Formats: sequence, structure tokens, C-alpha cells
Amino acid sequence: MIGDAAEDPACEATGRPDGLPESLAGLADRLDRALSLRLSTVAPVSLQAAIKSATHGGKRLRPKMALWFGKCWGVDPSAAEGMACLTEWLHSSFLIQDDIQDGDEWRRDQPTLWKSLGIPIALNAADWLLSAVYLEVAQISTSDAIRSKLLTAVQDVHRRTVVGQQLDLDSRANPDFNLDRYEHAVQWKTGRYLALGMVGVAILAEFPDSSVELLWKVGDQLGPAFQIQDDLLDMTRSKGRGGQIGNDIREGKPSILFAHALERGDLSAHDRSLLIEVMAKPRHQTTEKDVHWVIELCRSCGAIDFAREQARCRAKDAVGQFGQIPGITTDVQDSFEQLAKFAVERNR
Amino acid sequence: MIGDAAEDPACEATGRPDGLPESLAGLADRLDRALSLRLSTVAPVSLQAAIKSATHGGKRLRPKMALWFGKCWGVDPSAAEGMACLTEWLHSSFLIQDDIQDGDEWRRDQPTLWKSLGIPIALNAADWLLSAVYLEVAQISTSDAIRSKLLTAVQDVHRRTVVGQQLDLDSRANPDFNLDRYEHAVQWKTGRYLALGMVGVAILAEFPDSSVELLWKVGDQLGPAFQIQDDLLDMTRSKGRGGQIGNDIREGKPSILFAHALERGDLSAHDRSLLIEVMAKPRHQTTEKDVHWVIELCRSCGAIDFAREQARCRAKDAVGQFGQIPGITTDVQDSFEQLAKFAVERNR
Repeated sequence: MIGDAAEDPACEATGRPDGLPESLAGLADRLDRALSLRLSTVAPVSLQAAIKSATHGGKRLRPKMALWFGKCWGVDPSAAEGMACLTEWLHSSFLIQDDIQDGDEWRRDQPTLWKSLGIPIALNAADWLLSAVYLEVAQISTSDAIRSKLLTAVQDVHRRTVVGQQLDLDSRANPDFNLDRYEHAVQWKTGRYLALGMVGVAILAEFPDSSVELLWKVGDQLGPAFQIQDDLLDMTRSKGRGGQIGNDIREGKPSILFAHALERGDLSAHDRSLLIEVMAKPRHQTTEKDVHWVIELCRSCGAIDFAREQARCRAKDAVGQFGQIPGITTDVQDSFEQLAKFAVERNR
Repeated sequence: MIGDAAEDPACEATGRPDGLPESLAGLADRLDRALSLRLSTVAPVSLQAAIKSATHGGKRLRPKMALWFGKCWGVDPSAAEGMACLTEWLHSSFLIQDDIQDGDEWRRDQPTLWKSLGIPIALNAADWLLSAVYLEVAQISTSDAIRSKLLTAVQDVHRRTVVGQQLDLDSRANPDFNLDRYEHAVQWKTGRYLALGMVGVAILAEFPDSSVELLWKVGDQLGPAFQIQDDLLDMTRSKGRGGQIGNDIREGKPSILFAHALERGDLSAHDRSLLIEVMAKPRHQTTEKDVHWVIELCRSCGAIDFAREQARCRAKDAVGQFGQIPGITTDVQDSFEQLAKFAVERNR
């Protein structure tokens, strides 16, 4: 089994269910306090309840990266917390919208927000979270010059992720989908978004522009690596969807596995046509048999091995690029390496 | 007929179908160029097409206010255009989301975006528009200190409008809805949002904080006045919904008319209970007969007269408050007065 804990010494070694590196895992309480403090003042209570429900749980990797690297780079703790919270608000907003767009009914083993409270309330919560992203930028304790840089970074990630989502939507069950198109979409949708917390604290730490640019490039590798591992996990383990695997297949998600199978899978005309047909089916028409057939096809045509290799190569490249940033200490380099390892070896 | 052009000398006098004061109407081409220039670079084309469709048409009052007052107050034209565009992006994003939340199928006599392209694409377009709001703030030609003030203003309006929308959603078909609740919701949802373009250029013109605060208060009056006129028009004229009147009744919108009827309408127990029942009905179950019964009830119980009076008083107060801002010239005061007149006397 891909990503099975039994095959994952790195995850097993931590002894924690989320498998996060200790440096990041130890920040959970501090992050929780910063998020809770902000949410406690949201009114009306109906909105607060919706937002609390949408931001509950998850690995919270992105905000923990902001706290961790903020600490490494001597950023004012309250500013790093602001940066951490804004990445969590942005992520939560995207998840609410993704779930509506994909018709997903489960997230983190709970009903999704639109499913439990309806689309109008879910949309409003997603919109509040976006306003909260920019409230953090407006209020973060820094100079106006740095705030301008931060705003540029945050809105750029926001916009890129939306463009990436559009490329993703346009590729759903598209017979012309291939590895080039996958690469284009994943670079827009995933790269900068995963790195935002880390880059944000580098901006707050007044890193030179060239170092900030290198950090974005690290994200361009690490983000897709993280995403590919997600795609692999969906084929083997339920990702918080009440025990259901193959959710990406049900929603026709244009993943690297689908791209590889179509472009390099050497499929028979029958298998190729059936694959496209399954990916194009509305979610509720996709059968268990369809899902298992696609998983087996991805295994036999080499798509799973290819994806696993891709994730590992990209994580390795990210580590190499991280090391090129002037002034990075060995300790910080080591912790980034653990993080990259986690991204592609985690089992949830 | 309320707001009928035949009763509206102010609108008739302009000779233009939108009835906008000449100062604002004359800015249409300049605004169109600024918006088109920005949209021409949006990729992929599927996203560009969705956004163009969502931003097409409408009175564009808010961005024109930014251009007009920007000109009055000597703001750099390109900065005023940035401010104008961001108000249009914010407004268009809210409209897309509103239409999804309300299940509205028509807007500006065209199918709504979710209706024509589906909820996933519509949501993504709304999200892109929000990112574009903050791109304008990031790129506007001004000092970093002014940019920080502008960011605070923009995100505050964004957040307030979302909170107002929540209060509105919570009040749908609520038997306890009353004028206090209406006032609370409309202040959050409408006031600052209408004034944003005007306040934004005042910030860019480096008005003192006390004057900016006065301008917000002007919006707190003018925004609800504008909204009340919208509510009145919905009862007498189709607001771009393919000839259909009473759309607010179909969606159970908690308007000032509904609040007045429930609280001060002196309704019989039967009428009160029937009114709540009609407002609570899902849109597709509301009949033509229901709609006409509610309109007649609002007329006979004095809700329509009350709303009309409220709109006029608030517009008058807005004009009075505008005049208190130090340094406002007679010309600018006159053009604001025309604008306030338009807000409550327009027939579309």
C-alpha cells in the first residue's frame, strides 16, 4: 500500500498520528490559541459557528510553517501569528469553496459546511475568511513598506490559486488532459499557496528580494510534491471522507495519475475510452467498481509509481533549493528537510 | 406607481435611460476603458469570459463615484481608476455570490452567472474578483502609508458587507424580524459599501481622518437610502429580471417593507401569519397571487409610504452631513446633492 504507515518509518518515528515533524507539531497549542482568540470575537454567532466548524481540525501545516520559520528567522511572535492565521483563513476559505464546487459531502470525517448549513451560509463563511486574510495583512505589526510587500505576496497567491482552480475545472474529464496541462495547473494552484506562510515570515524578517524569490521556487517544488502525495493517498486511504477512497476519481479530478495514464500509460483504446468515461461521470453515477478499476489501471500502467517518484524528486529539489538561500543555518535546513520528507511520506 | 418615471422629474430631466447625474454619467467611457484594459489580460479565457459576463452592464454607480470625487479632489487619475475598478470588482463578486445564495436566475436581464456557467465556475469568478480588489490596493500609485489606510478601509468594507449578509440570511422569513433588526443588517451590509469609492479617493487625496470618518457617515445614510429605493422598485418595476416584479418577496428578503409591515402594519393575525408564510416559502412555490397580495398589503398598511419617506430622509441627512466636511466646495456639494437625489428618485 502506498503511503501505508507500515512502510513509512519517517511517519512512524514521530509517534504522532499526524506524523508532523516535531518542530511543527509542537506549535499546535500556540496556533490554536491565536486562531481561537480571533474567532471568539466574530459576530453574529451564526457566522462564528460556521467559521469555527470550517476551520476545525486538519494538519494546519501551512500556519505551522509560518510559526516555525518565523521563530527560526527572529520574526516578532505576534506578527508571525498574524501570518499563520491568514494562511489558515485562506486555506479554509478555499476548502469551503472546493467542497461546493466538487459536491464533496465529507471533509475531515465531518459533513462539509455546505452540506451541514447550506450553500448560502457556507459561501458567506468562505467570504468572511477571505476578508479576514486581508484584515491580518492590514493589522500585522510591521512597517507600511513591508506591509505593501506582504499584501502583494498574499493577493498574488490568492489570485494564482483561483487561476489554478480554473485550469483544474477546465481539465475535468478532458480527453486532451496531459502532463503539460497538469503541470501548468498545479504550478498555479498549489505551489505558492503551500509556501505562503513561510514566505510571509521571510518578508517580515526583511529577507532580500532574491531570497524571497528562491523561497517561492522552493514552494513551486514542495507544493506539487505535497499535492501528489495527497492524490496517492486518495487511492489507498480515506482522506477524512468517512472511509471512502477514490474520491478524486468520483469527482473526475485532473491529477498527475490521470495525466500519466492518458499520456504515457500505453492504454488500449478500450481502457483509454473507459477511463475518460469514468472520470466524466457525475459523482453519484460513479460506482465502487469504476473506482477500483481506475485504481488498478493506475497501478498497472505505472501511473502510481510515476507519481510517487515525482513527489520524491520534487521534495528533494525543494530541499536543494532551500539550501541555496544565503544565511540559512544547518538547524533550519534540517527542519526543512524533515518537513519535505513529511510532505511526501505522510500517511494522512 | 412608486418611482415611476412619469412621477420622477429628476430622472426625466437628465434624458438618459439610467437617470444618472451628468457628472457621473459622463465618466462611463473612461471607466469602461479602465475595466476592459484590466480584464483583457485575464487568463485562461474561460475565466476571462466568466468575469466579463459578470461585470457587464449595470449602473456602475460606485466606480463612477470614485472617478467623479477623485476628479473633484485632485487625485491622480490612474489611482482614481484603480479605486473605481476595485469597487466594481467587489460589487460584481458580491452579486455573483448573492445570486447563488438567493437562487436568482436573472440579473440585468441576462441569466445569472451560476445559471449560465454553473456554480463552480461562478464561484471561481467571484473569488478572482476578490483577489483583483486587493491587487488594485497593492498596485495603486500612492505611498505605502496611504496604501495601508486604503487596505484597512477596503477590508473593513469587505468584512462588514459579509457580516451584513449573514444578518440578512439569518432574518429570512424570521417572524421576529423588525425595524431594529433591519437597521442593524442594512448598516453592516449597505452603508460603507456604497461609499467605498468616494471614501477611497478621499483617503488617496489625504483627507484628514476626521473628514474620512464624516464621509463614512454620509455612506451610512446614503447606502440604506439607495437600498430602500431598490426595495421599492422591486415592487413596481422589474429590476433586470426579465419582466418579473416582486423578486424580493419570492426570496423572502428581509426588507424595510417587511419589517414595517410586521412591526407597525397593524396587521390582523391572519394577515400577519400569511405574510410570514409567503416570505418563508421557497422561491418556486411563491405564486403570482402571493406576490401581488404582499405588494397590496405593503401598500395598504403604510409600509410603502414609510419606506419612501425613510429613503428621502436618509438621502437628505446624507446631503447635510456631506456639507459638514471641511473644505467641500459648492460645486462638489451640488454634485453630491444630485447624486443623493438620484439614489432615491431613480426608476431603475
